Amino acid sequence: MDNFLTIIPNLAIVQDTVAATTKDIEDAVSAINGDLGMLWMLLSGILVFFMQAGFTLVETGMTRSKNAANIAMKNLLDICVGSLTYWLVGYSLMYGDTSNGWFFWSGLMQGEGADLFFQTMFAATAATIVSGAIAGRTKYSTYIIFSVVMTALIYPIAGGWQWQGSGWLTNLGFIDFAGSSIVHSVGGWAALVAAFMVGPRIGKFVDGKVHAIPGHNQILATLGVFILWLGWFGFNGGSQLAWGGADAIGASNVVLITNLAAAAGGLGALITTWIWYGKPNLPQTLNGALAGLVSITAGCGNMSAIGAVFAGLIGGIIVVFSIEFIEKKLKIDDAIGAASVHGVAGAWGTLVIGLWGIDGETGIGLFNGGGFGQLGSQAIGVLAYATWSIVLSFIILKILKSTMGLRVTKEEEEVGLDLSEHGEIAYPGKRDRG
Amino acid sequence: MDNFLTIIPNLAIVQDTVAATTKDIEDAVSAINGDLGMLWMLLSGILVFFMQAGFTLVETGMTRSKNAANIAMKNLLDICVGSLTYWLVGYSLMYGDTSNGWFFWSGLMQGEGADLFFQTMFAATAATIVSGAIAGRTKYSTYIIFSVVMTALIYPIAGGWQWQGSGWLTNLGFIDFAGSSIVHSVGGWAALVAAFMVGPRIGKFVDGKVHAIPGHNQILATLGVFILWLGWFGFNGGSQLAWGGADAIGASNVVLITNLAAAAGGLGALITTWIWYGKPNLPQTLNGALAGLVSITAGCGNMSAIGAVFAGLIGGIIVVFSIEFIEKKLKIDDAIGAASVHGVAGAWGTLVIGLWGIDGETGIGLFNGGGFGQLGSQAIGVLAYATWSIVLSFIILKILKSTMGLRVTKEEEEVGLDLSEHGEIAYPGKRDRG
Amino acid sequence: MDNFLTIIPNLAIVQDTVAATTKDIEDAVSAINGDLGMLWMLLSGILVFFMQAGFTLVETGMTRSKNAANIAMKNLLDICVGSLTYWLVGYSLMYGDTSNGWFFWSGLMQGEGADLFFQTMFAATAATIVSGAIAGRTKYSTYIIFSVVMTALIYPIAGGWQWQGSGWLTNLGFIDFAGSSIVHSVGGWAALVAAFMVGPRIGKFVDGKVHAIPGHNQILATLGVFILWLGWFGFNGGSQLAWGGADAIGASNVVLITNLAAAAGGLGALITTWIWYGKPNLPQTLNGALAGLVSITAGCGNMSAIGAVFAGLIGGIIVVFSIEFIEKKLKIDDAIGAASVHGVAGAWGTLVIGLWGIDGETGIGLFNGGGFGQLGSQAIGVLAYATWSIVLSFIILKILKSTMGLRVTKEEEEVGLDLSEHGEIAYPGKRDRG
Repeated sequence: MDNFLTIIPNLAIVQDTVAATTKDIEDAVSAINGDLGMLWMLLSGILVFFMQAGFTLVETGMTRSKNAANIAMKNLLDICVGSLTYWLVGYSLMYGDTSNGWFFWSGLMQGEGADLFFQTMFAATAATIVSGAIAGRTKYSTYIIFSVVMTALIYPIAGGWQWQGSGWLTNLGFIDFAGSSIVHSVGGWAALVAAFMVGPRIGKFVDGKVHAIPGHNQILATLGVFILWLGWFGFNGGSQLAWGGADAIGASNVVLITNLAAAAGGLGALITTWIWYGKPNLPQTLNGALAGLVSITAGCGNMSAIGAVFAGLIGGIIVVFSIEFIEKKLKIDDAIGAASVHGVAGAWGTLVIGLWGIDGETGIGLFNGGGFGQLGSQAIGVLAYATWSIVLSFIILKILKSTMGLRVTKEEEEVGLDLSEHGEIAYPGKRDRG
Repeated sequence: MDNFLTIIPNLAIVQDTVAATTKDIEDAVSAINGDLGMLWMLLSGILVFFMQAGFTLVETGMTRSKNAANIAMKNLLDICVGSLTYWLVGYSLMYGDTSNGWFFWSGLMQGEGADLFFQTMFAATAATIVSGAIAGRTKYSTYIIFSVVMTALIYPIAGGWQWQGSGWLTNLGFIDFAGSSIVHSVGGWAALVAAFMVGPRIGKFVDGKVHAIPGHNQILATLGVFILWLGWFGFNGGSQLAWGGADAIGASNVVLITNLAAAAGGLGALITTWIWYGKPNLPQTLNGALAGLVSITAGCGNMSAIGAVFAGLIGGIIVVFSIEFIEKKLKIDDAIGAASVHGVAGAWGTLVIGLWGIDGETGIGLFNGGGFGQLGSQAIGVLAYATWSIVLSFIILKILKSTMGLRVTKEEEEVGLDLSEHGEIAYPGKRDRG
Repeated sequence: MDNFLTIIPNLAIVQDTVAATTKDIEDAVSAINGDLGMLWMLLSGILVFFMQAGFTLVETGMTRSKNAANIAMKNLLDICVGSLTYWLVGYSLMYGDTSNGWFFWSGLMQGEGADLFFQTMFAATAATIVSGAIAGRTKYSTYIIFSVVMTALIYPIAGGWQWQGSGWLTNLGFIDFAGSSIVHSVGGWAALVAAFMVGPRIGKFVDGKVHAIPGHNQILATLGVFILWLGWFGFNGGSQLAWGGADAIGASNVVLITNLAAAAGGLGALITTWIWYGKPNLPQTLNGALAGLVSITAGCGNMSAIGAVFAGLIGGIIVVFSIEFIEKKLKIDDAIGAASVHGVAGAWGTLVIGLWGIDGETGIGLFNGGGFGQLGSQAIGVLAYATWSIVLSFIILKILKSTMGLRVTKEEEEVGLDLSEHGEIAYPGKRDRG
């Protein structure tokens, strides 16, 4: 009977231990899922970093060789400046976490590393979109200021409206999973404004006629698109922000349908140019694949596979006409079609969620007949980001124009920005044989 | 005594709880391993995707600049068309999962995303192998049809024989871990048939003499091989189809010995050309590294490290002679040696498992003196895939020849496919200075 | 009462089961963390592999086109030879694990795959650093011997001093997380010695004047730097050697601050050249980004974010002056600035830990006023690696000079190494049109 007296408390202890064990399992699973999420975000950030190389190749390949080194210098600047400004002020501004004042100035970090790294690459992407549009005539010093303002202010503030978690667009029900509007349209509309403000390259529009200025290396441009396509798997997939359970399935599906939309976009542009130009056109097919990617960036968490295919296909068709429209009707010289690929396709990708987007968990369609349903929220978001980007870019470029100036001289433009702005050409072929 | 009456049922509950807890741990581990496997397959699929860029660079670099944009358009087409056809019909056809009819037409996916994405990239690879062999003279429209048939029918049906899980080759004991035969030989033999059917480029064989038509950019080709080598870590490693416990060790070893075989293949070709041509030759060293990779693709789960080195080394030696043989003896103009790199080395890589392959778990050798042991099974597989690919390719190309035609006109070929098929050249150098 | 007798032993069993369950959880977590660590190291190794492509592009882009194929052949050789020699002898020599004699000759591996793969890529990197410095005049056969000795002996022995776990530098408290000294300085000083021993390219120094020999393709060089920057995330991040819990946070922070240092390094060189040359210079900005990366390689586990920014920034400034100094004062023709980027910045990156490095866990500064504190240990490590690399390289090159010879003939150099050493040029442009 002596034993008996100890059993009851012992049993209670065992019960507690068992309960604690169950809790231990939950904690262990939760910790591992956290580590998995960090791994996925870090790897995704690494993929998104590589997109900078893709942009460099697309932009240099699609423009003239005499400006190639200048474009490389602009893209290098975007990642260098963007990494520093977004770390210094952008991240705090966007996510509102200013508990440490100027947030990452000092000390050890406690787990934000992967997230900050991933988000930094988005800021650098937004800036880089602009660089191609204004190729061949813009002052390098002016571009630096614009890149700083873009990564430190324009993008972070706009991003906070949605991705901060309780921004005004989030509260409206706006959906933009990976940034068709937040990153690409913001960059694309800024590119359009910049191309307009800087003015066309010499020889682009002469006596009311539009002259093609073909890029110097379509193979580099093709490699660039493959690299961008690759990086986009991280751009969209990493925006799941987690891995483990439903998130692993979710992120995998995001990557799958991102690929389907890109494929459909490339095919859409290929067929469109075949019909319209008479031959399937390489630069436009490249733009079509990119437009397909931009078109699924907002909806990649809210789209069936077939929905993604049509979002991308239509994006790839739209981009061909948009490039022609901006060039021939608006008479704006966007050297690589950045406003169409990122701005117009970005708007389309945001709106399509209101048409045939679905709830990511239940699969139920989000369209409810227009009005102020999902389509209304999407339209408000599209307009808000367009307005913000256009107005801010305009103001900053106006200020820069009347102070530093936006454009190199006629002589500098003709000799090429490589020599005039950097003192060296990209391909010193003749000296090469010497 | 009142307490005593409750102890017994309580103890039973505790026992059940403990049993349930053990089960919980197993379930949690199993779920996490599932998530890890999905992560590894998705990342591997992303690496395999990048191989498309590698193929583009190898094929453009090793052929003439006047056809470079055409090759880029063919490679873009393969990934665009392959992604869509394999999703629409290929995957269902290969794995026999037609529970949803036309499988992925609609709705949400429930975890197949990573697998479908990974397998899609294999289908696109099989198609792409053909594009280089027939560079410089093939009609683009005809190529499209061939690419569709390859990714929707030829590859998926052949793949199902082994990778569907209970196909007839699996039942024979055939081993092809990542596709030396299933992907590379199927692509390589199709390339050989296509090169034969389309006929040689103008100027390749004149008055019984063979003329070298050197590629225009060996640095792009080198970059392409590095990208392919990189992607192959996903191609072979991802074919473990899982990560966690023995699978993590297994996949790591697969990646390690894949690298050893590639290194040995490159070195094998380098030394062979040094002895045979008098100087170590770059394009052949590149082909040797690729042949080393193809040679270990079937056996990377069934080979010791030293076995992998010799599989790759011999693959790298074989490929040099095979390219010469096909060009000089068979008088078939395979523009980049695709039939040798993928077909011949693929057959070698499949057969070598029967020679010095080992059981992946026990390490015991699989060779049992020939006859219908492992070597017999491997030989049957090699023959089956060769026959299937050659016969199907021949039939389809025969039909295409008598309907659409396979070849551009003599004038179009001479001006280059970039201008004649796409209306733009890859390197508009002269206009560039304008 | 019968039941009562069974309760006590049953309870003991339950208690044991619960204890075993707790152990099971710990084991499961430990196994999963092991699998996660293997995944991270394998992926990091794959990223580091890709750095070989980056080196190839930087080195070819920054030198003349007539030697481009030769550089590609040297870089291919480094990965082929390095993979085999490091597997055969280097790994055993470095980590002292010779329990299986010549370690990986045969049999299955039991989990070392990911680690051996990762470490192999470091050995290949150390060798590759040399190839660019001596571009344009070195015999290929001689380079092969040097590459073998580098990957089989010089690097593994030096690496063992610190990374073997209980080497003499480890015992001194020396810190070199990912190899600023162990990999980069060892490679960089060997490059300096080799450039000196081989002598300058014809036309580099004429009548006491220094002539610039500009590289032929700055866009390839830029792509190369982006690829190196990308690969460096694996180089530094993977050196955490684990993932899970504190290691996941640690590795994420390593990647984040690696990026910050690279950005600051690029910006440092950009600004320095703007002030000093009058225009922001592309090749030097590229070198600056690389110097920023080298400068954080030793300290990436012992540096705050702001500390990393200044380490990189100063590295990017130093490299510009160091390149000028070696060229103009020492009159050594290091064709791509390898000794400055890897040797000098590597030394700086090692020393800076003694200045504003911190303890990775507590965040406490390591500087204690000089003397034989951390700065002293760092200085000893820098000197030890410099001495080892310089002396060994000198001896081997001296032997090679008096046997095989180091240099091609004047005629071979003038025609270019592509044609004289490999019988083919990298860009057969003229024949291309034929």
